[in-house]
Amino acid sequence: MSAVAKLGDHVIKNGQLIPSDQAVVPVALREVQYGFQTYESLRVLHGEVVHLEDHLERLRHSCDGIKLVPPCSYEDIGAWVHLLIESDHIGDATMKIQVYGGPEAMCFVMAAPLLSYPERYYRDGVKAITYHGERLLPTCKTGNLLLQYMALEEAKRQGGFEAILVDRKGDALEGTRSNFYAFHDGKLFTAPDEEVLGGVTRSRVLKACKKLGIEVVFRSPKESELDAGYYDEAFISATSMAAMPVTQINKVHLPGNRKRTLAICKMVRDWELTDN
Amino acid sequence: MSAVAKLGDHVIKNGQLIPSDQAVVPVALREVQYGFQTYESLRVLHGEVVHLEDHLERLRHSCDGIKLVPPCSYEDIGAWVHLLIESDHIGDATMKIQVYGGPEAMCFVMAAPLLSYPERYYRDGVKAITYHGERLLPTCKTGNLLLQYMALEEAKRQGGFEAILVDRKGDALEGTRSNFYAFHDGKLFTAPDEEVLGGVTRSRVLKACKKLGIEVVFRSPKESELDAGYYDEAFISATSMAAMPVTQINKVHLPGNRKRTLAICKMVRDWELTDN
Repeated sequence: MSAVAKLGDHVIKNGQLIPSDQAVVPVALREVQYGFQTYESLRVLHGEVVHLEDHLERLRHSCDGIKLVPPCSYEDIGAWVHLLIESDHIGDATMKIQVYGGPEAMCFVMAAPLLSYPERYYRDGVKAITYHGERLLPTCKTGNLLLQYMALEEAKRQGGFEAILVDRKGDALEGTRSNFYAFHDGKLFTAPDEEVLGGVTRSRVLKACKKLGIEVVFRSPKESELDAGYYDEAFISATSMAAMPVTQINKVHLPGNRKRTLAICKMVRDWELTDN
Repeated sequence: MSAVAKLGDHVIKNGQLIPSDQAVVPVALREVQYGFQTYESLRVLHGEVVHLEDHLERLRHSCDGIKLVPPCSYEDIGAWVHLLIESDHIGDATMKIQVYGGPEAMCFVMAAPLLSYPERYYRDGVKAITYHGERLLPTCKTGNLLLQYMALEEAKRQGGFEAILVDRKGDALEGTRSNFYAFHDGKLFTAPDEEVLGGVTRSRVLKACKKLGIEVVFRSPKESELDAGYYDEAFISATSMAAMPVTQINKVHLPGNRKRTLAICKMVRDWELTDN
């Protein structure tokens, strides 16, 4: 009798369960070289996928945005997510859907241990830097990620956790893998929807703000304002982070007590279990 | 006795000769997902590599530009190019060097049949379209190629051979895989060096212009000028193309007789064999 399959043993490629070490792509394939690819990262908690429909909807938006035709339907992909959970007896995990386009289109569904962060990141907040550069298609999750890679590496070199991307107008739009928000005078400032990734988590952050009576202003924080200490509390949001306090940006420490961020974070986390 | 190895049988990965079908990368590897990668395409003619040192120098420039540390020296890579030519008894070929960075850095050297184009492309010229979008790091050849992929697909949909990328100022900078040039009043207009890829072929095109007494103006043709028929002859250059006449841009047909382009093309091709 073979051992019971567990998290990480398999990957699904175009509907077929294959061993994880066979989840490879040819170096010479044009779509691999050019990053003609879309993706989603999802949370699985107690065997349940969090906000699956939202992720599939965003995947569709990303594919449409770059005219990538997946080799299957979005319903298929959703079914494959469930298939992998069952096959590998997955409880908690971070799952990734990755779709390559072109004549040999491929869809991979992969699982890894649940991405989570130390409690002190939430208690003490994390450091971010600003980084100048503009995403090609901000509302789509694609393989065009070199800017994000370089920015995050620079943040790490400076002892930071995230880099906030600043455009040529000086607007601090979003993180390399997160959305970005900052409080001034009780109001929350964040980029307009059309300039950033429409986060599955971002939409819940905004809903939480409504519930908590926090006014949201859709105007990006300026880098110059961040450097001048204009904001007293800031945070980033992502599927893996919910809402994570940012207590230092470049050399500026933010004085806020993070209560509002943590209230938003708790609400977003609670909704993961109720599919709100 | 095993069959004699031939073009395409092998790939070199970090110095090791492996069967081509094993030239794969893990889908889940961050550097693959993010396109943290640089590359070069080279011509091999009669077993000789054309302008190898220039390509290695540009590869170094690309790696430095994105802080990618290859798993080997550039001399190693040059030696591997020769090793593959010998191992697979390569006469004419297009070779590709592809370097992935990160903790598991990898360098691949691959060969494919020599990329060439029908003679009528040179005789009659090709059609190009303009496409709006800006490259992240124009002087580096990296895996951040989604814009180029989308632009070229759009060109093909419109029956074109190349898309010329136009920035937000309306400047027609370069093709998706080529540099771009247009004649007006006997002068050749092309983008300033710092705004485009420093082509190995581009430098020879410029040298040919000097020899031929053609004045070069380093100012990008404007999209509005192209649409207004301001230029009477245009061409694109690349390793695989040398200098290829462009006789239609969007709906505008260029009246030029292409003699200047073909003179430049011949000179660039001749230098391939003398390593000039």
